[in-house]
Amino acid sequence: MIDRCLGVQRSRKVRRALRNCKVTILCLVLTVVVLRSIIGAGKFGTPEQDLTEIRNRFYLHSRKRGAESHRVLKDDRQTTSASSNTSNTTNSNFQKANNNYNEFDTSNISVDEEEDENPDWHKPYSVGPKISDWDERRSKWLKENPKFLNFVGEEKPRVLLVTGSSPRACENPVGDHYLLKSVKNKIDYCRIHGIEIFYNMAFLDAEMAGFWAKLPLLRNLMLSHPEVELFWWMDSDAMFTDMAFEVPWDRYKDYNLVMHGWNEMVYDQKKWTGLNTGSFMLRNCRWSLDILDSWAPMGPEGIIRDRAGKILTKELKDRPAFEADDQSAMVYLLATQRDKWGDKVYLESEYYLHGYWGILVDRYEEMIEKYHPGLGDHRWPLVTHFVGCKPCAKFGEFPVERCLRQMDRAFNFGDNQILKIYGFTHNSLVSKRVKRVRNETSNLLAVKDQLGLLQSPFKKAIKKIG
Amino acid sequence: MIDRCLGVQRSRKVRRALRNCKVTILCLVLTVVVLRSIIGAGKFGTPEQDLTEIRNRFYLHSRKRGAESHRVLKDDRQTTSASSNTSNTTNSNFQKANNNYNEFDTSNISVDEEEDENPDWHKPYSVGPKISDWDERRSKWLKENPKFLNFVGEEKPRVLLVTGSSPRACENPVGDHYLLKSVKNKIDYCRIHGIEIFYNMAFLDAEMAGFWAKLPLLRNLMLSHPEVELFWWMDSDAMFTDMAFEVPWDRYKDYNLVMHGWNEMVYDQKKWTGLNTGSFMLRNCRWSLDILDSWAPMGPEGIIRDRAGKILTKELKDRPAFEADDQSAMVYLLATQRDKWGDKVYLESEYYLHGYWGILVDRYEEMIEKYHPGLGDHRWPLVTHFVGCKPCAKFGEFPVERCLRQMDRAFNFGDNQILKIYGFTHNSLVSKRVKRVRNETSNLLAVKDQLGLLQSPFKKAIKKIG
Repeated sequence: MIDRCLGVQRSRKVRRALRNCKVTILCLVLTVVVLRSIIGAGKFGTPEQDLTEIRNRFYLHSRKRGAESHRVLKDDRQTTSASSNTSNTTNSNFQKANNNYNEFDTSNISVDEEEDENPDWHKPYSVGPKISDWDERRSKWLKENPKFLNFVGEEKPRVLLVTGSSPRACENPVGDHYLLKSVKNKIDYCRIHGIEIFYNMAFLDAEMAGFWAKLPLLRNLMLSHPEVELFWWMDSDAMFTDMAFEVPWDRYKDYNLVMHGWNEMVYDQKKWTGLNTGSFMLRNCRWSLDILDSWAPMGPEGIIRDRAGKILTKELKDRPAFEADDQSAMVYLLATQRDKWGDKVYLESEYYLHGYWGILVDRYEEMIEKYHPGLGDHRWPLVTHFVGCKPCAKFGEFPVERCLRQMDRAFNFGDNQILKIYGFTHNSLVSKRVKRVRNETSNLLAVKDQLGLLQSPFKKAIKKIG
Repeated sequence: MIDRCLGVQRSRKVRRALRNCKVTILCLVLTVVVLRSIIGAGKFGTPEQDLTEIRNRFYLHSRKRGAESHRVLKDDRQTTSASSNTSNTTNSNFQKANNNYNEFDTSNISVDEEEDENPDWHKPYSVGPKISDWDERRSKWLKENPKFLNFVGEEKPRVLLVTGSSPRACENPVGDHYLLKSVKNKIDYCRIHGIEIFYNMAFLDAEMAGFWAKLPLLRNLMLSHPEVELFWWMDSDAMFTDMAFEVPWDRYKDYNLVMHGWNEMVYDQKKWTGLNTGSFMLRNCRWSLDILDSWAPMGPEGIIRDRAGKILTKELKDRPAFEADDQSAMVYLLATQRDKWGDKVYLESEYYLHGYWGILVDRYEEMIEKYHPGLGDHRWPLVTHFVGCKPCAKFGEFPVERCLRQMDRAFNFGDNQILKIYGFTHNSLVSKRVKRVRNETSNLLAVKDQLGLLQSPFKKAIKKIG
């Protein structure tokens, strides 16, 4: 009938349009159904119970995981409303935040106080039971086990480098290759400097995933390895670029936490990049257990971390909006409780315990031309840290090509210092190939290893076991 | 005109066929041109000089690489023709092969003797200049450097675990993830047992790629690290599955090369799987330099390796046809020169220095039920070695799913022994997740670590540096 009314061609067009409409309507219906099942209540006019149901499921799910008791931080409505004022009141907000709780971890956030029927959920998150006498217990253990020395040689503490990555393969197929190169890089530096490595690939606490995973890990390692004096956490996207630089351990003998950073940027400006937690040292002592406990409460994944992130964005300078990260939380902790923690925290800026890749990688050729390994600073950085690159994830904050190319260059820059020991070097800073730079000689023992890395003088390890 | 002759439809068909013909002819011409440029002479009626030219280019190219002088193995036409006889003459072939040259590396293969105009190219391949007095030099160095002990404690030699992988990302996207897990596994075992690691990602000799790369690497490391007494090569597809097993070092004090294998399978049966070179120890001494030199000549990539492979397939029992590999070459070397090398080679079969995955991985549950770590043998293997799986390559010899799943299980089987130290275990042998198996206690120091791995008694390392 349509044919007769409209003509053959026009009728074809009309039929096609009707078919398209049917498909469109079907898709719309499916979308609504799916959305309804995900988001549920409220916005689509379904009962409010759904919101409560989801929240309950969240808590029950967390319990079922069998992890530590999960706590929701108590709401302090005064802090919340105060923080919505202008930046002129920032200092008073910090004061209020400081005064409103005994410990850093008893404040700030709740999911929905009126919904809560279980008062336990308002206790702050903790990485583990408090151990007030850890220093005494550890001392006693060390005396009873003299074979395990926490100091090796005269001045060098026993150090354990702690790093790791997800147990899952990277979303970006090439990501695992860069993790592999990164761990090889760490193996080389640590072999030369007499440092042991712990590579973690387990989430010990399901809530503390991502950048927060290092907290429960460090606590666990601390308590399990009393013979280790210093734990050196290093991110998987950080690489050693000065194989000859020895950390000035003696400088830190009166401190328990060493991070790259600047006092004024943390305590005065409250800048979220005032320090970096991608490469830091933590002493094995009670003070460290306490700071881990104070640091952790913004970490639990989900609503707590999201809301904590909003507070951190408001309180810290230049911080973009995203969930709470361990670095911002540390800045906040130190800035608000300087009296409690500050005297045992060393913010190091004389060498690159963490070196931001953006200001270093284009200067490698200049460094090679003018300087030499062993300096550790802007002239020859100890660590080049690829913050924001995220080679394991699908998306990072920088173009992936630049990141990967520069990671290759940084790797080769460090690797050349190792290869040189054996008479080789990479063909170029981007090349995987190597070439011989020292004539083959049968008298290798007479060959001078310029950096003195061959039989490393840094290995002051004395580990006696009868 | 075609239209008028054939009609419209038929003419369309003819035109289409003509167009297809043109494309086909063009492709054929391109193929011939490309083939001509690759293969060159002879088969396509071009001058014979091309063969010589290509050979010369091969040699010149090898020279330009700046690697060691490359040598072509001398042809022994008697051996070649003799080896085409029946297996009854196998023994006499071995005898002839043995008699026909002073060293293993002066026999067997040439490209084309009559073409050769440079007599140097008939000298066998060598990993480096001969060092006849290495033992004396090393002894002298050790006396002059008493801070670097080659024996730590009373009986334990200083060991360096050597492993590695290609500098290129795996062809199989998930391959690098398994390399990462494998190196983490090695880091764990070596940390507990006081062994250092060298992870190689450089091809030191362009010709000796693939499984042969370990030879120039081991030589280089030997000469650069006189303080290391034993080098333990381990393939990247081999994993530690007994974290508590300590190698019986004292058993090998009179031997220089330790491999998993059986005397009768090597010396009597000449079976190519009579030993395994995926996990072996090599002492740092002149004898080892010599055996590397004798082992290497079948390795150079290309014609030499291909032809050597054919000889090995003929001479060794059950060997499939493929290019020469280091394992078959070692069997051949020992079988043909037992008098020269045999007394310093220990073929270990009491525990799984190398454990073939195929007979182990389905028994993990049984092992967990009946046995415990520390045994190292069929009950609880020290090493599970995934020969043939090749997770890094596009294709392996076994279904990839089975390989990856079993590699996950082997990794978890070993990892559970580490996690248990800290009170955790994997949810199952295939699960990436972990769960707590020991109640959180503030008295971790009192907790018994069943395997005694926490503060490992194996670390008998005494490294004194003033």
